[in-house]
Amino acid sequence: MHSCNCIGMVFVPAFPVIGSDVANIALAMLIVFGAAKLLAEFFEQIGQPGIVGEILAGVVIGPGVLGWVRPDEFLGALAELGVIFLLFRVGLDVKASELMRVGKTALLVAVAGVLVPFLAGWGIMTARGVSSIEAIFVGSAMVATSIGITARVLSAMGLLGHRASQAILAAAVIDDVLGLLILAVVSSVARGHVNILQLSLTAVLAIGFTALVAHFGTQAMGRIVPGIQARFRGGEVQFNLALVLLFAMSYLATRAGVAAIIGAFLAGMALSETVERRVHELTHGVSELLVPFFLVGIGLNLKPSVFGSTETILLALLILVAAVLSKFLACGVGALSLGRADALRVGAGMIPRGEVGMVVAQIGLGLGVVSQQVYGVVVFMAIATTLVAPPLIRIAYRGLSAAPQSAARAGDAI
Amino acid sequence: MHSCNCIGMVFVPAFPVIGSDVANIALAMLIVFGAAKLLAEFFEQIGQPGIVGEILAGVVIGPGVLGWVRPDEFLGALAELGVIFLLFRVGLDVKASELMRVGKTALLVAVAGVLVPFLAGWGIMTARGVSSIEAIFVGSAMVATSIGITARVLSAMGLLGHRASQAILAAAVIDDVLGLLILAVVSSVARGHVNILQLSLTAVLAIGFTALVAHFGTQAMGRIVPGIQARFRGGEVQFNLALVLLFAMSYLATRAGVAAIIGAFLAGMALSETVERRVHELTHGVSELLVPFFLVGIGLNLKPSVFGSTETILLALLILVAAVLSKFLACGVGALSLGRADALRVGAGMIPRGEVGMVVAQIGLGLGVVSQQVYGVVVFMAIATTLVAPPLIRIAYRGLSAAPQSAARAGDAI
Repeated sequence: MHSCNCIGMVFVPAFPVIGSDVANIALAMLIVFGAAKLLAEFFEQIGQPGIVGEILAGVVIGPGVLGWVRPDEFLGALAELGVIFLLFRVGLDVKASELMRVGKTALLVAVAGVLVPFLAGWGIMTARGVSSIEAIFVGSAMVATSIGITARVLSAMGLLGHRASQAILAAAVIDDVLGLLILAVVSSVARGHVNILQLSLTAVLAIGFTALVAHFGTQAMGRIVPGIQARFRGGEVQFNLALVLLFAMSYLATRAGVAAIIGAFLAGMALSETVERRVHELTHGVSELLVPFFLVGIGLNLKPSVFGSTETILLALLILVAAVLSKFLACGVGALSLGRADALRVGAGMIPRGEVGMVVAQIGLGLGVVSQQVYGVVVFMAIATTLVAPPLIRIAYRGLSAAPQSAARAGDAI
Repeated sequence: MHSCNCIGMVFVPAFPVIGSDVANIALAMLIVFGAAKLLAEFFEQIGQPGIVGEILAGVVIGPGVLGWVRPDEFLGALAELGVIFLLFRVGLDVKASELMRVGKTALLVAVAGVLVPFLAGWGIMTARGVSSIEAIFVGSAMVATSIGITARVLSAMGLLGHRASQAILAAAVIDDVLGLLILAVVSSVARGHVNILQLSLTAVLAIGFTALVAHFGTQAMGRIVPGIQARFRGGEVQFNLALVLLFAMSYLATRAGVAAIIGAFLAGMALSETVERRVHELTHGVSELLVPFFLVGIGLNLKPSVFGSTETILLALLILVAAVLSKFLACGVGALSLGRADALRVGAGMIPRGEVGMVVAQIGLGLGVVSQQVYGVVVFMAIATTLVAPPLIRIAYRGLSAAPQSAARAGDAI
């Protein structure tokens, strides 16, 4: 039916209900969501985190194995919305004041967790004799923690309020700001023109935005939300207001140079002391639908055929081990002031890389300074760390999870 | 960042979090959702239905006026998901057994509401001297009621359970099946090859699917859901199961030849006596987010500049009046067995046309049997009926709405 798009108008109705496109939307939703929940259930049955099953579902239905689904713009957008809602929901459960209390430790964790993985990746590639710029790109791709996975696991265990979890969240926010700055520097270097003024501006904007919202967001919302609620006559005023703030902050975050998910997290945190329980419930419904698209999206991007040679496999495994150990040890040491048990938890929680690593690799590939082989290795590293982390996080938090978990099952899990 | 899509792999990561695409997603969500809720609130403040404000928001931000947003695949897909979730939520509030009770009246309402508007549209165009095939297309475009709008209004008023509302819902389901059959016939005629066997097969499949699910769905779910729930270990089993059924039925409906939203409605109805309150809440969160995209999407497709000449404006108004009156009178008379007050309600509730009318016009345009002018007129008719209907529905239900509405405000409104 879309063959008649030739009608020469700007506003071709893109959304009529009958037609092949619609069948495809329902079918895509069915396959992605159904496969995610089926494999999640399978993993739960064998005592493993369901989240690993959802990522693997993406590998299975993706181009690498069954080829039923390939990443497209629609699924990509749902994945993006999924991780935005995931971080928003996590933010709703976090109080800014409590996060500030672990601020110093978090800063230490973030800085150590950026430097050591960078040096590890750079060192390995330099030892293999690649160009220095390619080594720098691999190092940079190993820097940024992807908080989505850890947040999903901790939330499902009902342990977001734990001190170690708070340290992880705060460190991940700082980590993202640092990762962004490194990305900006590396891109400039690769393009051959380093603009110190622009880089400084980026740094100030990113740090300023994050610090301002984290500091004053809660107060501001405490004043604004009740006023609007009293005056508005429509239904679900708080939820609608929360969604508007969520989208606005996600957008502003990207304008300030940080990831959209940081804005989403900050929006949630700013609202956490103001909104009613009902907003949590309704947000939960949305994230329950959309988060699987984020997780499946990770798996969809893994294409096993990249690993044709033994050499590539060995390099990929080496980089993976380096990525896991460097983050785990550096962040663990950074968090030692919280005691050994919490240090282990923080170390494990910071392991997952994700989208940012893939973006760095993609830019390097686009600029022609990263080879196809190394690109595949970095994407593998980013995905494999997200698969390795959930069991490690569960082990690190063992003993704490029993009681809250059943409560979480009854309703509070993301 | 998407300029580096040239990397010659199937699985270009379409969803990394940093980059312009993401900023655009958050921005698009902010503009569409924010504008919808702002205008909805304005309309509520002046005592009009918020839904009209949401549709007008689409006109205002769309290509016709401000030009901030234009319909694209992503927004189209969200609109589609929005109306699917809307009808699913409506289905969840409807019991199949109660719907069956108004079955005979509904059949009469549907048949009358298909014949009379068809004749009205065909008659007007024939009187103007256009080709008989163009007249048939306009008539066909005036046939199918779009239940989304009426469902949204009745649900917000808390009056879905009323007998007139049940008759509207049942009639709309039958109406959709009839509309589909007419669409199939007309398309065949326009293409010049009428395949009786194929048309009969379409009819049998569409009617069979709808009747089977309406009849046996509730029983089947009553057996299947508790069994799965007892065996599964993951969180939110019922909600996940409901979503899988929703997508499966929406897809199967399109395969059987009816609209996806009919499948969504039937899925909801099949689950209505089985699932817990929590599934309603979580679904409500999703529909609260997505339904505005459906409503704004309607408005986005209205391009005022089509109406350049007085002649076109007059024709558009004539067709609009004919569309409103023919549906209102025919369905009202068809529902007279429910008494005069309910007959008025049914007549008003069946007025909105929507996507199906636009699809018919689009096919006609694509086949070259409908002119640009008539295409614009039909799109205008489809949109304008959705704007006219909500106030009429509220007037028809006046007196009944007071008590349930405040309850609805407290939580139950879609």
